[in-house]
Amino acid sequence: MDKNDGRFCLELKVRDYECDLQGVVNNAVYQNYLEHARHEYLLTKGINFVKLHDEGIDLIVTRVEIDYRHPLRSDDRFIITTDVQRQGNARLVFNQTILKIPGNMPVIKATVTGAATKNGRPVAPGKILTQLGLE
Amino acid sequence: MDKNDGRFCLELKVRDYECDLQGVVNNAVYQNYLEHARHEYLLTKGINFVKLHDEGIDLIVTRVEIDYRHPLRSDDRFIITTDVQRQGNARLVFNQTILKIPGNMPVIKATVTGAATKNGRPVAPGKILTQLGLE
Amino acid sequence: MDKNDGRFCLELKVRDYECDLQGVVNNAVYQNYLEHARHEYLLTKGINFVKLHDEGIDLIVTRVEIDYRHPLRSDDRFIITTDVQRQGNARLVFNQTILKIPGNMPVIKATVTGAATKNGRPVAPGKILTQLGLE
Amino acid sequence: MDKNDGRFCLELKVRDYECDLQGVVNNAVYQNYLEHARHEYLLTKGINFVKLHDEGIDLIVTRVEIDYRHPLRSDDRFIITTDVQRQGNARLVFNQTILKIPGNMPVIKATVTGAATKNGRPVAPGKILTQLGLE
Repeated sequence: MDKNDGRFCLELKVRDYECDLQGVVNNAVYQNYLEHARHEYLLTKGINFVKLHDEGIDLIVTRVEIDYRHPLRSDDRFIITTDVQRQGNARLVFNQTILKIPGNMPVIKATVTGAATKNGRPVAPGKILTQLGLE
Repeated sequence: MDKNDGRFCLELKVRDYECDLQGVVNNAVYQNYLEHARHEYLLTKGINFVKLHDEGIDLIVTRVEIDYRHPLRSDDRFIITTDVQRQGNARLVFNQTILKIPGNMPVIKATVTGAATKNGRPVAPGKILTQLGLE
Repeated sequence: MDKNDGRFCLELKVRDYECDLQGVVNNAVYQNYLEHARHEYLLTKGINFVKLHDEGIDLIVTRVEIDYRHPLRSDDRFIITTDVQRQGNARLVFNQTILKIPGNMPVIKATVTGAATKNGRPVAPGKILTQLGLE
Repeated sequence: MDKNDGRFCLELKVRDYECDLQGVVNNAVYQNYLEHARHEYLLTKGINFVKLHDEGIDLIVTRVEIDYRHPLRSDDRFIITTDVQRQGNARLVFNQTILKIPGNMPVIKATVTGAATKNGRPVAPGKILTQLGLE
């Protein structure tokens, strides 16, 4: 886990149960990887997904776009890169990639749009924008 | 979903993403099936796992024993049978089997022991025992 | 499971283990639902994902776009609608929606682009296009 | 990942998507952790689960016993310890524990029995026993 060109990087390894009967990581599992990387990134900025939920504030995903370039297989190591931009007053856009290592072969490229809700209603993520340095 | 010799039966079908690189349903997924069948069974008795959680009461699993007899594969249909017994004042023991259909080939046989906690502490599941007819 | 305006419809129910600590179905799980519906749809057209894999032909996802509109929760029932179009000679585009029932509240809207590979290399999905009536 | 009293130790961290609506790691997920630890352990002995599968030899689980002591939650770190014994000529018994760190609070205690099959039929895991030093 370190920084690379300002992007947050998280290194993980494929677990065999994440592979499906084609012998590759199942498509849905990449969303697990991406979510975990976003939450780890937010933690480095002092933003705790679970504590926010306990306070009635939920960070939610409103849109996901994923391009699948190359599959991961058993025993593969990979890096998830994450950075975030602001979209208007209410949305955060995470740009994420997964790169197989060594060699940095592109595995997926994803754009994940998020928003905040308070007790189920949209709210401007004011304090969160400050914590992310996006104000 | 119907009754069979007093046992609750739930019929499901394997989904391809539940299969791993050996081409069979991954061992951990059977626990998902068993949990889902227990919750559906409890619902038929008026016991709602989620509403209980919202009231501070959590039904938890304290022990699982699973014997794996025959693997399920893509496209297989199966029945999960569930019945429950009382163990002392604090525990429920669920006997569950999974049978591949047609033919009723035994897939797994499981014993799952559960208990109740209130705000994290063990409590006697009094009302639940009544609802299950185990008083 | 039936047809609706020519679209394939699959009805499912949320399983509690699919919900995350926000109490809603986890974002990645919708991809599981979508994959299962696509595979069930293909089966109705005589296209078996697993048998194709055993013959060296893999149907793969190259791009996913999902808009999340309304979350599913414990006990919710929903329909997944699926239809498919051809994109050039090499791609299939699945349009999929999830609707909560009763009431048909939109849950997600997804576009999933797929392709075929043979022993890891792209191939034109000729016979599959015929089976889907897209020739 | 290191050794501790001869037992193989793997350190992992809870990922938020592994938690269910009770806010704790779902019971089935511990089996994922245990499988991953066994496969990592086998790799250190030169035994590759996936390569064996490609050669027609499948390592399978025949029985699982898990005692759940204390739940893991978001952000928790834990160690999985794994060792293995021989049971007759055909079975391997893995003793596994999960300990929350720091503090080594017991989370689960598991006994997982495994066997080998070749093209679907039981075989004595001769070479594997040698690689594990259990001959």
